[in-house]
Amino acid sequence: MSVTAPAGFVAGGAASGIKSSGDLDLAVVATADARAVPSAAVFTANLAPAAPVMVSRAHLAASGGRAAAVVLNAGNANGATGIAGRANAERTAALVANALGATTEEVLVCSTGIIGVPLPMERLDTALPPLVARLSGDEAGATAAATAIMTTDTTAKQTRIDGDGFVVGGIGKGAAMLAPNMATMLAVLTTDAAVEAAVLGRMVGDGVASTFNSMSVDGSMSTNDTVVVMASGSAGPADEAAVSDAIRRGCADLAAQMVADAEGATRVVRIAVIGAVDDAEARRAARAVADSALVKCSLHGGDPYWGRVVSELGSAGVSFDPERVSVSYGGVTTCSKGVAVLHDEAVVRSHLAGRQVEVQSDLGLGNGTAFVLTCDLGPGYIDENMRTS
Amino acid sequence: MSVTAPAGFVAGGAASGIKSSGDLDLAVVATADARAVPSAAVFTANLAPAAPVMVSRAHLAASGGRAAAVVLNAGNANGATGIAGRANAERTAALVANALGATTEEVLVCSTGIIGVPLPMERLDTALPPLVARLSGDEAGATAAATAIMTTDTTAKQTRIDGDGFVVGGIGKGAAMLAPNMATMLAVLTTDAAVEAAVLGRMVGDGVASTFNSMSVDGSMSTNDTVVVMASGSAGPADEAAVSDAIRRGCADLAAQMVADAEGATRVVRIAVIGAVDDAEARRAARAVADSALVKCSLHGGDPYWGRVVSELGSAGVSFDPERVSVSYGGVTTCSKGVAVLHDEAVVRSHLAGRQVEVQSDLGLGNGTAFVLTCDLGPGYIDENMRTS
Repeated sequence: MSVTAPAGFVAGGAASGIKSSGDLDLAVVATADARAVPSAAVFTANLAPAAPVMVSRAHLAASGGRAAAVVLNAGNANGATGIAGRANAERTAALVANALGATTEEVLVCSTGIIGVPLPMERLDTALPPLVARLSGDEAGATAAATAIMTTDTTAKQTRIDGDGFVVGGIGKGAAMLAPNMATMLAVLTTDAAVEAAVLGRMVGDGVASTFNSMSVDGSMSTNDTVVVMASGSAGPADEAAVSDAIRRGCADLAAQMVADAEGATRVVRIAVIGAVDDAEARRAARAVADSALVKCSLHGGDPYWGRVVSELGSAGVSFDPERVSVSYGGVTTCSKGVAVLHDEAVVRSHLAGRQVEVQSDLGLGNGTAFVLTCDLGPGYIDENMRTS
Repeated sequence: MSVTAPAGFVAGGAASGIKSSGDLDLAVVATADARAVPSAAVFTANLAPAAPVMVSRAHLAASGGRAAAVVLNAGNANGATGIAGRANAERTAALVANALGATTEEVLVCSTGIIGVPLPMERLDTALPPLVARLSGDEAGATAAATAIMTTDTTAKQTRIDGDGFVVGGIGKGAAMLAPNMATMLAVLTTDAAVEAAVLGRMVGDGVASTFNSMSVDGSMSTNDTVVVMASGSAGPADEAAVSDAIRRGCADLAAQMVADAEGATRVVRIAVIGAVDDAEARRAARAVADSALVKCSLHGGDPYWGRVVSELGSAGVSFDPERVSVSYGGVTTCSKGVAVLHDEAVVRSHLAGRQVEVQSDLGLGNGTAFVLTCDLGPGYIDENMRTS
């Protein structure tokens, strides 16, 4: 049920023709009664934000943190499209608002796809009113919405976390450019718990920090990243810590699905760093390893080449002592105090041949820890990204 | 003639068996009379430097900037090898010193290859004395040395710059991990101009900054990077600016050969950024574009996807205004003031289909400029790096 699992939400998807394939490409998630409810969002930190990011940010500010709907399209990012692009994002929101009976400021907009190409508005003009008219609270509506926002994703990404007296649901998409600060990923989370917008904002901020912001496919940060959360309040008040935890778990579930489905990926890799002087340095070191094309190629080949890990740690710009570092794969130490140690090579190779891989480095300097979820770099990534169409 | 073109130098190569292929893997460049001459070097900034880097740095300090020879091996980086690794690097220097009749501190050591594996010293013990005995000042010696230091390089890299009354020669290697701060690249430059060690140090520092440090294959910085320059003085004093310029040109020539021969590369790409608020921000922006796997995949496919360039500029951590940026390929503007502009698409596609590609971004903010030489990201890179052997 995902995004429609919490009481008070409807969703749906349509094939408007933005994708030339004819696949679903337009989604709406709305409150069942078209009422604006407390809402919050985290947006990309890219200084070239796409039009929908600029428009959604302005709408949330104008509405005082309330939204009745989110409209999402795939196949066109509406980024680097200038004033005309912003007008198109505004018009997209207005089309949904009119069909729902809400105000334009109560509708948020998300887009993903190619950058620099005008959004084909005539297709949205035609497709949005009938889509809004048939939004539903059943599973089909949520699945259609999750499917419509896919780009090079191979699976629709949905989550549902059942709390004590409330539910959190969510849909998301993401395939490449998954990087520090949530790259090319969109997610819409819903809950029926009653939560004020400001509190919701803190919850989604916290949830994103430890999940979407801890994954990296290729180190690139997109122009369109957005995570929205809406709280219908239909289930009444709930324990704040419990809601926050459920939102974090929903984000974590979607993040894990995104990394597993990254372009060309054959393995999900958890790059952990412990023993850094502080958490910030641990995070920087983990990202340096996770973003290394050389390390990721090794992981694609299932090769426990810890020397590349040490080399990336040494050039990560963090405190580092080559005589204190150790590296383990799946819990088996291959390098200790900076040099190779005898270990069961068959166990390590078997771990690296699996779908879930763990690489942990101990810098031996302090108590700082962090992890980054990433994937291997294989030929599929290049196939996917060498041409726009 | 490359490294033996300047008067007063000899060189040679041998197949010691470090490379299991039986190819040449050991090189020596020395002064013809085994006399220590003014020498300087630039080393990797990686905080996990390999043993030969630590040893060479100490030797130059102990000798007061004089060296009689450089010994280089490929197939084993002697990195992450601890105290035993440093002892092996010292012994390598001593073997050459004994054979030449120089002191150990007058010999520098460079290694490249796999990290974390002990250097097979018995092979060096056997191979080094006869190699030193047959060093020669002819072309064969220089070519053998240039060939012996190749790893995944497909061509030996040599340069010769003729100055007014003096000559600069050089050999180099580099294939992957070519990144900011000279990754996995080695170069030995020689000149017969008479230059003091301190001056030579400034010259090589300047030369590296604008050449090797302005190239990037995959953003990784190696544990072994070293650029050595030795001045025999055989040609007598020369104009300092002219020698410095010749060293810079020699470095530039080797750098261009390295990028062109990068693992799996099919194109050399010059990523230029102009109009940044200062040169430092221009450099950071150019590197962000050059290190982007998404941009490099586009370049592999010959796809002028300027939206990815804008996206990387927006997340490069530099001052950026999306309404001022423009992007051009081979001089043809495809994006101006942040949006697509009409242009001759056939001309752009034809430029991108070539071996030499130019991508220039104008941030429209100031007078800062920089460029980075890089290459495309194709399946060959993954094939090369997915397994150690």
